[in-house]
Amino acid sequence: MTYCVGLSVDQGLIFMSDSRTNAGVDNISVVSKMKVWEVPGERFLCLLSAGNLATTQATISLLDERGLAPAERNPSILTQPSMFQTAKLVGETVKEVISYTTPAGQSADAMFSGSFILGGQIKGGKPRIFLIYPQGNFIEAGADNPFFQIGEHKYGRPIIIRTYDPKMSLEECAKLLLVSFDSTIRSNLSVGLPIDMQFYEADSLKAGYKRRFDKNDPYYQTISEGWSDALKSAFDALPPFER
Amino acid sequence: MTYCVGLSVDQGLIFMSDSRTNAGVDNISVVSKMKVWEVPGERFLCLLSAGNLATTQATISLLDERGLAPAERNPSILTQPSMFQTAKLVGETVKEVISYTTPAGQSADAMFSGSFILGGQIKGGKPRIFLIYPQGNFIEAGADNPFFQIGEHKYGRPIIIRTYDPKMSLEECAKLLLVSFDSTIRSNLSVGLPIDMQFYEADSLKAGYKRRFDKNDPYYQTISEGWSDALKSAFDALPPFER
Repeated sequence: MTYCVGLSVDQGLIFMSDSRTNAGVDNISVVSKMKVWEVPGERFLCLLSAGNLATTQATISLLDERGLAPAERNPSILTQPSMFQTAKLVGETVKEVISYTTPAGQSADAMFSGSFILGGQIKGGKPRIFLIYPQGNFIEAGADNPFFQIGEHKYGRPIIIRTYDPKMSLEECAKLLLVSFDSTIRSNLSVGLPIDMQFYEADSLKAGYKRRFDKNDPYYQTISEGWSDALKSAFDALPPFER
Repeated sequence: MTYCVGLSVDQGLIFMSDSRTNAGVDNISVVSKMKVWEVPGERFLCLLSAGNLATTQATISLLDERGLAPAERNPSILTQPSMFQTAKLVGETVKEVISYTTPAGQSADAMFSGSFILGGQIKGGKPRIFLIYPQGNFIEAGADNPFFQIGEHKYGRPIIIRTYDPKMSLEECAKLLLVSFDSTIRSNLSVGLPIDMQFYEADSLKAGYKRRFDKNDPYYQTISEGWSDALKSAFDALPPFER
């Protein structure tokens, strides 16, 4: 499993992903699920991925044109005219990867599926976030649905639904998403530290502040421990039940 | 889907279940998923059920011996010598129901599966809670795992994990479980009001306080609305993230 969130606020976009990958509980590794492309002043793109690691890595490699010698690379993902076209390219690429894996080759019980969150901005457009399905189609975040989650989304969803406000700063969003990730990590072994975080300030057209939280990160520890106490206080503040 | 919780504290046991049943989002009904048997002074049993409604209803009917005329009924579930034997009887009954449905009769895409939480106390024993699987086997709650959830358990789990304390009163447990249910109901359409709640005071050997919360219940409304504000305050109280 995996847990990734892409969230949109007035100030910009924030992306967060865990980094645990597993082939069974006895075979786990750390792999970042966040990929950033940028042409400063022109475009910024961030892609979060969940699902079969072979599928998501192949998709990213194709988008990156890693088949070419480094000098010859001119990734097509950096030449699309709009975020919509960029999402379409990601969708077509994942569909292509899945289609050439599924029918031939070794069969396996594992699914070849992969899902993506793509966010960013291209000059002349607005910051946008898309959720891209393994079938290649996609949906866009809007005012009624300002964030997307992929992977193990259930444990960490209630806190986002109840606390989100479009006027939040990116720093407040970082705190909110860390609480959501901590709730998920405590409940599902297949979601694990370190956590990657990427800010994007609207209209900056370049990668913003970036941070990786590992288990020794003092702020992560503060949130993880502090939230239990804060929840208990909140719970105590609710009126008692009377028969 | 469904959401049911059976929770054990020093003071006794508490059971809570939603009452939405559905065959698709366009076909929903209200059905209680809680069944209580008691012989005051001798035993108290509460059974919560999730899964295929035909399977769970047939299981309960068999346990209740509804095939007999009312005057001839002497439900075997009320004659077991221990909670362990009672859980075994429930497990054998659900396995039997599933086995006579599955191979013959009409085939369907729907699963015939059903899961149960059984809690209660029999004179001479302690209050106990079991989780019974559709395969007929079962596990018991203990100090490390003092509660069981069946159905849509993920949304409402983090708050129980972080807030539970064996010294809580049954009233505090009611508040906790209502928060957990409200988080689930807001996130999953297939879990719905009204909510049934049953208390059991340890060693009382009779059914305790009971209540049904519907959408007009003033306390449920207070919790549902108050928890969002309480969570926001708790969130604001955490130290801010700084770059």
